[in-house]
Amino acid sequence: MQKIGKQTIKFDAPPTVSECASIVGPKEADGPLCKYFDQTLEDEFWGEKSWEKAESKIIKETVSTLIGKSGVSTADVDMVIAGDLLNQCISSSFGLRDSNIPFLGVFGACSTFVESMSISAICVEGFAKNVICATSSHFCSAEKQFRFPLELGNQRPPTAQWTVTGSGAALISKSGNGPFITHITPGKIVDMGIKDANSMGAAMAPAFCDTLLTHFQDTGRNPSYYDAIISGDLGHIGKEISIDIMKSHGYNIKSNYNDCGVMIFDKASQDTHSGGSGCACCATVFSGYWFKQLQNKKVKKILLIATGALMNSTSSQQGESIPGIAHAISIEI
Amino acid sequence: MQKIGKQTIKFDAPPTVSECASIVGPKEADGPLCKYFDQTLEDEFWGEKSWEKAESKIIKETVSTLIGKSGVSTADVDMVIAGDLLNQCISSSFGLRDSNIPFLGVFGACSTFVESMSISAICVEGFAKNVICATSSHFCSAEKQFRFPLELGNQRPPTAQWTVTGSGAALISKSGNGPFITHITPGKIVDMGIKDANSMGAAMAPAFCDTLLTHFQDTGRNPSYYDAIISGDLGHIGKEISIDIMKSHGYNIKSNYNDCGVMIFDKASQDTHSGGSGCACCATVFSGYWFKQLQNKKVKKILLIATGALMNSTSSQQGESIPGIAHAISIEI
Repeated sequence: MQKIGKQTIKFDAPPTVSECASIVGPKEADGPLCKYFDQTLEDEFWGEKSWEKAESKIIKETVSTLIGKSGVSTADVDMVIAGDLLNQCISSSFGLRDSNIPFLGVFGACSTFVESMSISAICVEGFAKNVICATSSHFCSAEKQFRFPLELGNQRPPTAQWTVTGSGAALISKSGNGPFITHITPGKIVDMGIKDANSMGAAMAPAFCDTLLTHFQDTGRNPSYYDAIISGDLGHIGKEISIDIMKSHGYNIKSNYNDCGVMIFDKASQDTHSGGSGCACCATVFSGYWFKQLQNKKVKKILLIATGALMNSTSSQQGESIPGIAHAISIEI
Repeated sequence: MQKIGKQTIKFDAPPTVSECASIVGPKEADGPLCKYFDQTLEDEFWGEKSWEKAESKIIKETVSTLIGKSGVSTADVDMVIAGDLLNQCISSSFGLRDSNIPFLGVFGACSTFVESMSISAICVEGFAKNVICATSSHFCSAEKQFRFPLELGNQRPPTAQWTVTGSGAALISKSGNGPFITHITPGKIVDMGIKDANSMGAAMAPAFCDTLLTHFQDTGRNPSYYDAIISGDLGHIGKEISIDIMKSHGYNIKSNYNDCGVMIFDKASQDTHSGGSGCACCATVFSGYWFKQLQNKKVKKILLIATGALMNSTSSQQGESIPGIAHAISIEI
């Protein structure tokens, strides 16, 4: 692997995304991508006594599904790299504590899935045969932790997004027939001073554009190189802002750009306002939908850019703005 | 780099730890390692309005000190890999949001410093010239978040540890004269069912021993190979438990094993019970003390094993046990 330009890493022996798995909750099962997920849940608890325990079970079963589908034995997995939105990432650590695989915890808020894929790809070209990346989120545990108890029945503003309940996982391997991870562009933290914790798309859009512009500059590529440019969870509002920002820099991304948060829910019927969000948004939409599109050669080149808002409820209460980050990964066949 | 044995990675071109920096709070300044730190603070706020903002300032200034001492310009740093104990790792993301360096957030509780050094070393042998690793913790913000508000004046049990206020940072570089990172052994999650959140050393000791045993098996080394084997923050109780566990496996580590949590405070005079803990414990004691011992050739081979408890306050309230993890790194001249 080698660094090109300011921030991009180009792989000499591109790692393969050899398998993916995804499990989602009931609301995601009612959405337009339902048929692409491996499993859909009937309720938010899945037989557990708390939402946190349910979220741990979801990531555990997603990784278990991934290992089952891939046919790779646990002993042949060198590492699992995972994270989530819960305080101290307990969904991942409790969900994967029995996995018996070396564990690296990562946190990039909703950018975590692409962050874990990026580190996995570096490990695979470096020394590993197989690395698992996984993330999870849960609407109820996230609302409870970041906003208000659900029992209060607070009204959600139109800019709010709906945290995806689910988990997505990918197996990154040294050998395989693709799709291949050809480049990664890890992002910088970008903070434009937005303070509204109910307008995450607006807070993260500048980071998305910063990483996308850097990726184009570093690789010499332009929007038309990709069949699809996909952001993680900017939602409807963040997507529109990003199209405008990119236009002001001379790039027209409108025709081949979409957002996982826009794709996962039906805005007209599902009352999810600005769309989906959460660590699982990009993870399930990639693992469920985009990976299959690549496998079936319906798309051949995608740029997946997961976006994260690096705040917590204390920072908002202390009047802080919301720093955003975005990591990009090129996946090609 | 290559994988050897079950979990260890051996570097073919070992990355250099080219510089370190550390800043600590007033209690750490009263401890036996005071003279080794770059800066000591007179109070826990450092002119900020909250402990969280103070912790962000500490990691920011530590990274700034590191860059200043190293003489490397920010533009030549490929990545910063950082994490902390605050919810959603806000100390790192707020502290480093103006750094203008690509950022990867990591979370391994108090094992985070060695986790970030490990990923940094992989990146440096892979593609990077310079990577910064940094972690922070703060006694007051940690007590407030994980246990009780300090204003309550709760009594601390004898097994409790004292979260270190401070930050440690290291610059890992492709070229340099050492000390060199020769091996890393990323750990598995080990949960022996301990539920007492005031007895972290006991909860983490099994993970420490699991990683240490695996490191010995993978490398063919034994305790006497190292001038010092150093755990992150097992404290007095966890240290004794670890010596016993290792003895039961046929390894005598008593003569050359120490713990950063034991070293940073004076047990007799500082009322810190079982010793120091926190992301900054291992980070400041390595960056302050051990790095200088290596530079001055007072020790030539160390094995640093940072230990983490992967829980949060909600998991404890829901009756969960405390999963532990430990990551090891060999640093040699």
